Amino acid sequence: MQARDIAVNVPTVTVTDPVTKAVRVMVVGRLPGLIVVDGGMRPRMVLSGTQVLRLAVPGSYQEDPALARTIDETYADRFWQELGDLTVGDCLPHRPAKPVTVPLEATLLEVAALMTRLGSPLVAVVDGSGVLAGAITLERLLTSLAIAAPGD
Amino acid sequence: MQARDIAVNVPTVTVTDPVTKAVRVMVVGRLPGLIVVDGGMRPRMVLSGTQVLRLAVPGSYQEDPALARTIDETYADRFWQELGDLTVGDCLPHRPAKPVTVPLEATLLEVAALMTRLGSPLVAVVDGSGVLAGAITLERLLTSLAIAAPGD
Repeated sequence: MQARDIAVNVPTVTVTDPVTKAVRVMVVGRLPGLIVVDGGMRPRMVLSGTQVLRLAVPGSYQEDPALARTIDETYADRFWQELGDLTVGDCLPHRPAKPVTVPLEATLLEVAALMTRLGSPLVAVVDGSGVLAGAITLERLLTSLAIAAPGD
Repeated sequence: MQARDIAVNVPTVTVTDPVTKAVRVMVVGRLPGLIVVDGGMRPRMVLSGTQVLRLAVPGSYQEDPALARTIDETYADRFWQELGDLTVGDCLPHRPAKPVTVPLEATLLEVAALMTRLGSPLVAVVDGSGVLAGAITLERLLTSLAIAAPGD
């Protein structure tokens, strides 16, 4: 099997979408991450689920567990209401990593090796022009490998 | 809300379980990772989904994309059949990281900050003796935060 055989369509976001929408798209789609595309549907970034969460957690709490512990429970339930109109682009790192992509003809072993190397449970599959053709989640990969193994 | 309010029961594995079982437990449970416990149900490690996949991908392919590309498609569909009787313990790093745990009374902000800092979509909730009391997935956290936000 090749990446093209197991890729599925997933909802995407752009840098101008609000962070709150990005979180909602991921949760409603039960996705392990999100693909951020440009206007030409080319992947700009592939974010893991915790990287999407990171967009929504104020930076000061991310690195300082002691500070997060000082916040009372009621506020701690609502921290992300402070996000307001912040967009995905506002919260991305200034020097984003290369997006996690594979070509249509990548094997499942190549997809698995890329996921483990980059710690990304989501991979974008792109055509020869770099346009998004689909996505492979970790769950989809593992299910496909189980089907490919007739003896198991 | 506190960690105890949103923690759920999840299946766990031990270091003596085969890697193939670990992958199956994660996929069947639709979990974003796995908690490896000791004989006293204390978390020894909390693995993200891609770290569980890493147990199953031969090390030589993990770091070398060019090598993975040389493997033909039929074999690439079946690489994990080579795992045989390898156990979780056989494949773990020799100096494992501290397990990703929070106490029962941690706030949702503390859980979110820990997930983003460590890149772990799964957190083990432990009681005062360090025994596993439940787990919080990223999806569970985000759903709970949405419920806690009455204005959204």
